[in-house]
Amino acid sequence: MFRTNTCGELRINNIGQQVTLAGWVQTIRKFGAITFIDLRDRYGITQLLFGEELNKQLEENPLGREYVLQVNGTVTERSNKNKHIATGDIEITVSSFTILNKSEVPPFTIQDDTDGGDDLRMKYRYLDLRRNAVKKNLELRYAVNRSARNYLHENNFIDIETPFLIKSTPEGARDFIVPSRMNEGEFYALPQSPQTFKQLLMVSGYDRYFQIVKCFRDEDLRADRQPEFTQIDCEMSFVEQEDILTMFEGLVKRIFKDVKGIDYAEAIERMTWEEAMWQYGNDKPDIRFGMKICNLAFDKNMFPSKEKIFDEDMFDIPPFGGKGATIVAIAAPNCSEYTRKQIDELTEWVKRPQIGMKGLVYIKCNADGTFKSSVDKFYTAEQLKAIAEVANAKAGDLILILAGAEERTRKAISELRLEMGKRLGYRKEDEFKLLWVIDFPLFEYAEEENRWVARHHPFTSPKPSDIDTMINNNPVIENAAEYLQHPYANIKANAYDMVLNGNEIGGGSIRIYQKALQQKMFEALGMNQEEQQHKFGFLLGAFEYGAPPHGGIAFGFDRLCSILGGSESIRDFIAFPKNNSGRDVMLDAPSSLDDKQLDELQIKLHLKA
Amino acid sequence: MFRTNTCGELRINNIGQQVTLAGWVQTIRKFGAITFIDLRDRYGITQLLFGEELNKQLEENPLGREYVLQVNGTVTERSNKNKHIATGDIEITVSSFTILNKSEVPPFTIQDDTDGGDDLRMKYRYLDLRRNAVKKNLELRYAVNRSARNYLHENNFIDIETPFLIKSTPEGARDFIVPSRMNEGEFYALPQSPQTFKQLLMVSGYDRYFQIVKCFRDEDLRADRQPEFTQIDCEMSFVEQEDILTMFEGLVKRIFKDVKGIDYAEAIERMTWEEAMWQYGNDKPDIRFGMKICNLAFDKNMFPSKEKIFDEDMFDIPPFGGKGATIVAIAAPNCSEYTRKQIDELTEWVKRPQIGMKGLVYIKCNADGTFKSSVDKFYTAEQLKAIAEVANAKAGDLILILAGAEERTRKAISELRLEMGKRLGYRKEDEFKLLWVIDFPLFEYAEEENRWVARHHPFTSPKPSDIDTMINNNPVIENAAEYLQHPYANIKANAYDMVLNGNEIGGGSIRIYQKALQQKMFEALGMNQEEQQHKFGFLLGAFEYGAPPHGGIAFGFDRLCSILGGSESIRDFIAFPKNNSGRDVMLDAPSSLDDKQLDELQIKLHLKA
Repeated sequence: MFRTNTCGELRINNIGQQVTLAGWVQTIRKFGAITFIDLRDRYGITQLLFGEELNKQLEENPLGREYVLQVNGTVTERSNKNKHIATGDIEITVSSFTILNKSEVPPFTIQDDTDGGDDLRMKYRYLDLRRNAVKKNLELRYAVNRSARNYLHENNFIDIETPFLIKSTPEGARDFIVPSRMNEGEFYALPQSPQTFKQLLMVSGYDRYFQIVKCFRDEDLRADRQPEFTQIDCEMSFVEQEDILTMFEGLVKRIFKDVKGIDYAEAIERMTWEEAMWQYGNDKPDIRFGMKICNLAFDKNMFPSKEKIFDEDMFDIPPFGGKGATIVAIAAPNCSEYTRKQIDELTEWVKRPQIGMKGLVYIKCNADGTFKSSVDKFYTAEQLKAIAEVANAKAGDLILILAGAEERTRKAISELRLEMGKRLGYRKEDEFKLLWVIDFPLFEYAEEENRWVARHHPFTSPKPSDIDTMINNNPVIENAAEYLQHPYANIKANAYDMVLNGNEIGGGSIRIYQKALQQKMFEALGMNQEEQQHKFGFLLGAFEYGAPPHGGIAFGFDRLCSILGGSESIRDFIAFPKNNSGRDVMLDAPSSLDDKQLDELQIKLHLKA
Repeated sequence: MFRTNTCGELRINNIGQQVTLAGWVQTIRKFGAITFIDLRDRYGITQLLFGEELNKQLEENPLGREYVLQVNGTVTERSNKNKHIATGDIEITVSSFTILNKSEVPPFTIQDDTDGGDDLRMKYRYLDLRRNAVKKNLELRYAVNRSARNYLHENNFIDIETPFLIKSTPEGARDFIVPSRMNEGEFYALPQSPQTFKQLLMVSGYDRYFQIVKCFRDEDLRADRQPEFTQIDCEMSFVEQEDILTMFEGLVKRIFKDVKGIDYAEAIERMTWEEAMWQYGNDKPDIRFGMKICNLAFDKNMFPSKEKIFDEDMFDIPPFGGKGATIVAIAAPNCSEYTRKQIDELTEWVKRPQIGMKGLVYIKCNADGTFKSSVDKFYTAEQLKAIAEVANAKAGDLILILAGAEERTRKAISELRLEMGKRLGYRKEDEFKLLWVIDFPLFEYAEEENRWVARHHPFTSPKPSDIDTMINNNPVIENAAEYLQHPYANIKANAYDMVLNGNEIGGGSIRIYQKALQQKMFEALGMNQEEQQHKFGFLLGAFEYGAPPHGGIAFGFDRLCSILGGSESIRDFIAFPKNNSGRDVMLDAPSSLDDKQLDELQIKLHLKA
C-alpha cells in the first residue's frame, strides 16, 4: 500500500499518529517558508503542511496541480480549523514526500464550477470524472444500483444474465448488428431489451427475475438519449397488475429511502392514460403542481366519456381556428396582474417553432371579480365568467387559452403548463412526486401501413375484459377513414408507466402468455405466419409448454439516477457517455477498420455517394 | 396474485389453512377415484390430493405433464409422509382448480436425469432450464454474484458501468465489431474487457472499482469457450502486488463461505511461474495432489537457476531422444504393482495424438527395494536408484518417464500427471485448493514477426526491479536465433494468476502508469508512434495528468461458478449459452438480415466463394 490512510478519514483523535497519505495536489499555497497543500483522493481532502526544512526539496522538485503525491508525516491539530471539510480539524506535518507522478496543467480546472466547456470535458473525460460534482453522480448511481439489488434480493428476485449476441427482430426501434465471422453472411443483434428472454425465464419457472443490464437502440439521438443505456429489468410470474404496482412502488420507495433519505410514505397516485392526456396534455404528467388543463372543445372520439362543455359554435370565432379545433386552457394562479409585456412575451413563447401555436388568448380574472381578455369583443362578461368557471380559475388567476389541431395543441398546452409551473416555482428539484399511469390503449394506428402498431410492445396483454374482443375480431382495418370504429381501437392494454416529476422512469405490462393471443397480436401488427415463426418461433414454441401468467417492468436506470440527482441530463450520470452523434470523443470511436478485419467478416463498405 | 403460497413453503404448522397454489404439473398418480399430483414451482414441490368429487372435473379437463395449474384447497397432514422434500408432511386437499395453461408433451423429461440429448436441450433451453440440476447452477451463479458484490461493497469498491460500444484496438484476440449507421464507414467494437476504462477510472481517482460485466471475444471456440462471457472485473489505486493478493484472497474465501459454507482458513499457497512450469508442467497447477514433475534433463536457458541433475550423456540412449531432449518423470504412489497390461494401456494413452509422445519409460520401485524398468539393459540398479531418488519415488511407487522436445514433453507429462491424479482419486470435486501463480515472464517471443508480445496484456507493469532494464534497452531483437539473450527475455511481469483445482479462475497485474514506460511497451510490441496514438492516445493522454500507481484483477465468472458447482462445463452455468459454432440454436441466431438493414449501415456482404 502506498498509504496508511485515505485523505478523508483523519480526525482530531488521530493526532500524533505517523501516517502516509497518497493523492492528488488540489491546491498549493505558499506563506513565506511554509507551504500548504490540499491533497485530494476519492474520500476527501487533507491539508499538508510543508515546513521550512522541506522547502528546499520542494524547490528542487516543484509540484503542480494534479501531481500525484505520497507523503509521510504526523497528524497535528490545525490552529486555523476548516469547518467545511470533515478533516478540517487536522493537518499533516510532512516529514518526507515522493512525487508518484507528474501532471501537465489540466485543460480545465478540476472544480465544481469548472471552466471547461462540454466538448473539452468529454474529450478529457478522465479529468472531468475527477470533479466532485461528477463523482457524486456516479456514487449516487451506485447507491441506486445497490439499493435496488438489495430490495429485489429480499423479495426473492434472482439476477440472471441474458445474452448480448442475439437475433435481429426489427420491430419498432432499429437494432445494432454484429457480423458473425464463424457464420458467414449472418449477423447477431444487440438486445434492445431482454424482453423475450425474461419471458422465457418465466416459462422456465424462475418466478422472479431481475437484471441491471445494458440495452442498445440504434436511433437518431435526440438530446439526452444514448445508443447504449441501462435498465433495471424485472419480471414476475403468477401476478396481476396490482401485484406489480405494489412490488415496484416498494422498490422505488426503498431507493428514495436508501439514496435520498426520503420516507415516501404517501400512496402513489394512479391515473388512467385518458385522464393524463385530458388533464395534463401528455402521458407523463408532472403532478408536483395542479394547473390542470381544461378542454373547452374537444374530440368526442378521443374522450367519449366526457360531456362537451360548450357549443362548438361558441368558439367558432377568429382566434380559435374554427369548428372542430381543439381549444384548451390553463389557469395560472395569481397571474392576473401580468403586464402587457409579460403576456406578449408568453405569446412569443408559444409561437416559437418548438411550440408552434399561432397565438395565445388570455382572460384576466381580476381580483375585483371583473374580467379582461384578449377576446373582449367576442364575449360578454357572463361568457367569460362561464369560461373561467370551467377552467377552475379563481379571482386573481390568468387563464391562458390555446387552440388548433388536436395533437399539436395538446402538446403546446402541456408545454405551456410546464413552463408556467417552472416560472411560478412549482417544479422544485428536491420535491418528488410519483405517479402510475395505467390503462393505455393497446394499439396505435399506423396511417402509412393502415394497420395497428403496439403502443408498448407486441408482448403486452390486453385487459382481461378485452381479450375476447381481440381474439374474436379480424385485426385488418377495412376502411382507413373509420379506423376509430374498429373494435381494436378501444382495446386497453394491461400496461403501466411509472412517472416521476414529469418523466417516465419505468414502464411495463402484464404479458400475453397464450399462444393463440400472441399470434393474434403478431397478425394485428402485420406479421404473417412465416414471419412470426422466423422472428419469434422460440417464444411461440415456449408458449406451447406451459407458460404461466406473468408480467414485469423495466426502469430507465440512467434517467432515474439523473432525476434523483436533480439533473436534467442523463449524460452526467454515465461514466463514459456518447455525444449526440453517438461518438465517444475521448476514444474517438467509432472508427474505421483495417481491411483485414472486414475481410475476415466477409463484408465490405458500400458507402452512398 | 394467482397464489397465496409457493409450492415450497407449507409445513405441518399450516394445517387447516385455506391456500391457493399455482405451478407446473410434475407427476400425476391415479389411485382409483383419487388422484395425486405433484405441483412444482421454483421453490419446491407440494402434493395435491384430488378427491372423488373432483374426479369428474379432472376427466373432463384432463391434465398432463407441465400443465400450469392453479388450485384452491386446504392444507392437510399426509398419512404417508415424504422425508425427501421440505413439504413432505403435508398435502393440499383440493377444492377447486383452474388450468392456467396447457402443455404439449415436452420433448424430454424435466428431471435431473433427463432423456434429452445436448442439441435437443439447447433448442428447448426454456424447458431445460426447468430442470432442477440447471436451476441449482443458476442459483449458485447468483449466490456467487451476490457474495462478490457484498464483499467488494464492504471494501469500498464502487460498481461503475463502462461502455459496450467502444473502439476496435485489435491486440491479441479478435474484436466483435458493430457498424455505426450515424458515422458511415465506421465501426464500434465490443469490449474484450473493460481494461483501459478501469485504468482511466483509477486516473480519475475512483480508487476502487468493480463490475460484473459481459466481455466479448471473436475467437474460434474451443470446447467450453463462449463468444460472450462474464468477468468480475476489479481495479485498485495506490497498491502493490501484495495488497491485491490479500484483497482478493479475501474475496474468494468469502465466496467459499457464502456459497459453499466452506471456511477456507489456510493461507493460499504462492508459486512462481517457473516453479509451476518446472514442478507441474503448466502455469495452472492442480495442487490438490503432489506427484510433482522431476526434470531429469532440462534446458539451461529456461531454468537458469536450477542445477543439472545428471550428465546429459546419461540420457543419450535410444528411449530418450538423444542429447538436448527434455526428460521428465513423475512417481505414481503405490503403483509399482501395475501389470504389463496396465502399463501398455498407459503407453498407448501417451501415444494418442492429443498427447503425442513416442513412448513411455517406467521404473517400478518394488516394495522390497529392487527396481524393475523398461530400460534395464541401459542402467545399473544403482543408476535406477539414483533416478528414483531424484524423482522422489518411494518403495512401492511407479516412475513414469517421458522424453522429447521441450514444450510438447512438458505438456505431456503435465497431462499424464493429471490423468494419474484422476485415476488415483486425487482430484476430488468437493476439495478446493487455491494457488497464486506469480512472477510470469512479461514477454513472449513471436517467431513469425521476430518481436515481443505481451504475455498478459500491454498494460502490465514489469517488476519494479526490471523497469530500468526495460526503459534502457532497445526492444528490437537484432538476432532472432539469440532472442533468449535479449535483456527483455528475462523481464518478469508484476502479474498474478489465481488458480483453483488446476483452472485459472482469475488473473491480473500491477499496471504501467508512467507514460514513457507505456510507450516503451507499445514499442516492444511493434507499434509505432502513430499507431500508439491512434489506438491508445486516450490512455497515453491520461497518463500525462497524474496517473496513480494501480493494479487489478479479473475473475472468469462463468468458470468460477462451474468449478464451485462441481462441473466441467461453463455452459451449464449460463442461462442461454451458445454452441461451439457461436450459435444460439434456440433463437436460431446469428441470422441473415434484410437488405434494408445492410443498406442503412452502408455495408454489403462480400462472401468468399
